[in-house]
Amino acid sequence: MSNALRLGIAGLGTVGVGVIKIIQEHATMLEMRGGRPVTITAVSARSKTKNRDVDLSDYTWEDNAVELAKRDDIDVFVELIGGDSGPAKASVEAAIAAGKDVITANKALLAMHGQELAVAAENAGVNLRYEAAVAGGIPIIKALTDGLAGNKINRVMGVMNGTCNYILTRMESANLPYETVFEEANQLGYLEADPNLDVGGIDAAHKLVLLSSIAFGTQVNFAGAELEGIGEVTIEDIEHARDMGFRIKLLGLAEMTDAGLEQSMRPSLVPATSPLAQLEGGTNMVVVEGDAVGQIAMRGAGAGEGPTASAVMGDVMDIARGLKMPVFGQPASTLKEAKIAKASGKSAFCLRLNLKDEAGAMAKVSSALADASVSIDRMRQFSHDDASAPVMIVTHPVERTTVEAAFAAIAALNITTQEPLMLGIVDA
Amino acid sequence: MSNALRLGIAGLGTVGVGVIKIIQEHATMLEMRGGRPVTITAVSARSKTKNRDVDLSDYTWEDNAVELAKRDDIDVFVELIGGDSGPAKASVEAAIAAGKDVITANKALLAMHGQELAVAAENAGVNLRYEAAVAGGIPIIKALTDGLAGNKINRVMGVMNGTCNYILTRMESANLPYETVFEEANQLGYLEADPNLDVGGIDAAHKLVLLSSIAFGTQVNFAGAELEGIGEVTIEDIEHARDMGFRIKLLGLAEMTDAGLEQSMRPSLVPATSPLAQLEGGTNMVVVEGDAVGQIAMRGAGAGEGPTASAVMGDVMDIARGLKMPVFGQPASTLKEAKIAKASGKSAFCLRLNLKDEAGAMAKVSSALADASVSIDRMRQFSHDDASAPVMIVTHPVERTTVEAAFAAIAALNITTQEPLMLGIVDA
Repeated sequence: MSNALRLGIAGLGTVGVGVIKIIQEHATMLEMRGGRPVTITAVSARSKTKNRDVDLSDYTWEDNAVELAKRDDIDVFVELIGGDSGPAKASVEAAIAAGKDVITANKALLAMHGQELAVAAENAGVNLRYEAAVAGGIPIIKALTDGLAGNKINRVMGVMNGTCNYILTRMESANLPYETVFEEANQLGYLEADPNLDVGGIDAAHKLVLLSSIAFGTQVNFAGAELEGIGEVTIEDIEHARDMGFRIKLLGLAEMTDAGLEQSMRPSLVPATSPLAQLEGGTNMVVVEGDAVGQIAMRGAGAGEGPTASAVMGDVMDIARGLKMPVFGQPASTLKEAKIAKASGKSAFCLRLNLKDEAGAMAKVSSALADASVSIDRMRQFSHDDASAPVMIVTHPVERTTVEAAFAAIAALNITTQEPLMLGIVDA
Repeated sequence: MSNALRLGIAGLGTVGVGVIKIIQEHATMLEMRGGRPVTITAVSARSKTKNRDVDLSDYTWEDNAVELAKRDDIDVFVELIGGDSGPAKASVEAAIAAGKDVITANKALLAMHGQELAVAAENAGVNLRYEAAVAGGIPIIKALTDGLAGNKINRVMGVMNGTCNYILTRMESANLPYETVFEEANQLGYLEADPNLDVGGIDAAHKLVLLSSIAFGTQVNFAGAELEGIGEVTIEDIEHARDMGFRIKLLGLAEMTDAGLEQSMRPSLVPATSPLAQLEGGTNMVVVEGDAVGQIAMRGAGAGEGPTASAVMGDVMDIARGLKMPVFGQPASTLKEAKIAKASGKSAFCLRLNLKDEAGAMAKVSSALADASVSIDRMRQFSHDDASAPVMIVTHPVERTTVEAAFAAIAALNITTQEPLMLGIVDA
């Protein structure tokens, strides 16, 4: 019998407990598949006494994650603490320095420090694996690094924040305003301590920039991602978009163009019949376009105990089988510093303007758009609510900057009651 | 610089040419990702003189695939010949015996001889990889063996034959009968030399049994798969199913139940709004249900030069990186002989009966169904075409054998003009 693969698990929240349950329940299966037993040596968390609905009595308790990471009797350090600094970062660094393989679900840590951690791990000859950091149970990291490794990747996109998707789909299905559903989500515990991580698109963008690093062979660059949260999306926008055959999703898009690397996370319109449009609640979907494979789409639960633990275990099994892989699919030293381009790729847009209820307003808008060379595909004015009239305009494909210029011109006309909104239409 | 990984490629059809193109076009990218150069030493095919739109001048030509497989100057034998016997089988066996890793796209070979080849490969300490054998470019084999390895898999299902899906979707979109679209597909070169491999569901079932072996840890068992082709599906069935909110797909289903391993490939009804229902043309989708991860769905092109070559290259990159894996995700010696159960799992069914245009026929059918304990959820009689009236019946969940008994009783009544059809309704 081969030697067991011994884990040290830091962080015993939902995911940590899920991992422990799998290892306890499926010991035989895991040994069969991994070629050696998978065991847990020691665990660590903030509270030793909290009831976690799982038996920890066989494991050594460490109060300090960094001490856990350095223990001689673990082979793999599993970091499930979270956060892009503090004990998460310190313990991952300590594990690498101690020559341990590392598995983490920490998208923030990798989005902010992925390059330096990858260099450190590869210099130390250890694995740094993070399947659980992106899109929950969907094995998208492995699909990109392994299964699709023969492809030049052209584009990666996806819906990767379940909380935002829950809010947007719930607003539509229950016909409720953003603020109400936001509060609901908060009550249900769906939101991060800092809700802006979710609704501001930050968490989803953390995931996107990891995917784009693998896809394009570039160093992780979170600062180069354009962010727009879902807070400006109204229930009326959702309804009007639906009337025009679209649904609104917080969509991430990463693309390498002649101008450079474009990364954006924005509320976007997708055709109502598209698979992305039909994602409900916490479901995620990632779509990858490669030069050989064409389009591959993967759908699954984006969070939760089971799905995220499943992703952690995928990494555990790889390491049990002896895998050695560069962190981002090619040696970190070969990853290029990406030239960041404004994600201004031409697309059709859906514009929402709230016009003052006065004669000639519509004509002025039409002229301003025409003057800015924004060509209109179709337009709808909806019935007035109080003193303003929402107008939805679908443009022909045009640069984002061109629409922004038109918006600036319209703002100067003093005919709108609030900031206009522009949502890219993604043909996905 | 590490030593190159040297391939010998047998079979220079669409896929072989696709693989060569990727290796020629993306040499630098592949070396970066795989950690070593990927080169081609020698190739083999039936005709040396055929124009293949790719430069073979750098490669040694072998007339005989078995000789190619044994060459000292190759590390990996890539078998793209096809067929479950003959040179494909002989050359794969020769490669294994010579200690070469093997990559194949040959689902028939593995469906018929997977267990013995896996034992041979593992005894010889070589890899036998076959990502390209199932669902074209979708990296489903790796998802099952690696990414989802921490899950007890409950169910695998999918649409895995692009030709059948093309025929069914084309019948619906163009409102054409089966025979016409079959002929079209034949003219377009979509059909295998023996069309029954496609329309009889055999090719798709070859793929399904490979997935079920990995999912359930059982020896590949093609003989244990229940098969029903699409030849009995009429344009009227498609239309009537649509009217009732369903679409017809050739759906594979593998499930481990208390009764044993159920594997079936059958035309089935799926809700029109489900992702499976929306697959057009040659697109494939595989859905996996695991105890931790829940449901994962993967969609992509099921065939063609690029997608299939992409899958082959995924295996090439794994081997370049030093992967060693049991063929079916756990040692072949530990795979159990599956107890095969009749895939009679309870489901709702859609029944199509063509009643003679005579008084009381409907009443007799209703009575026969009631006597057999087949409970009706809803029923629709459509307008007569000539002398018979098609009746579509959606049942409540019931055993397949119960419906078969009812059909036998109805046949004895002499009130139908043709064999009735039963299609399982899969809630996917």
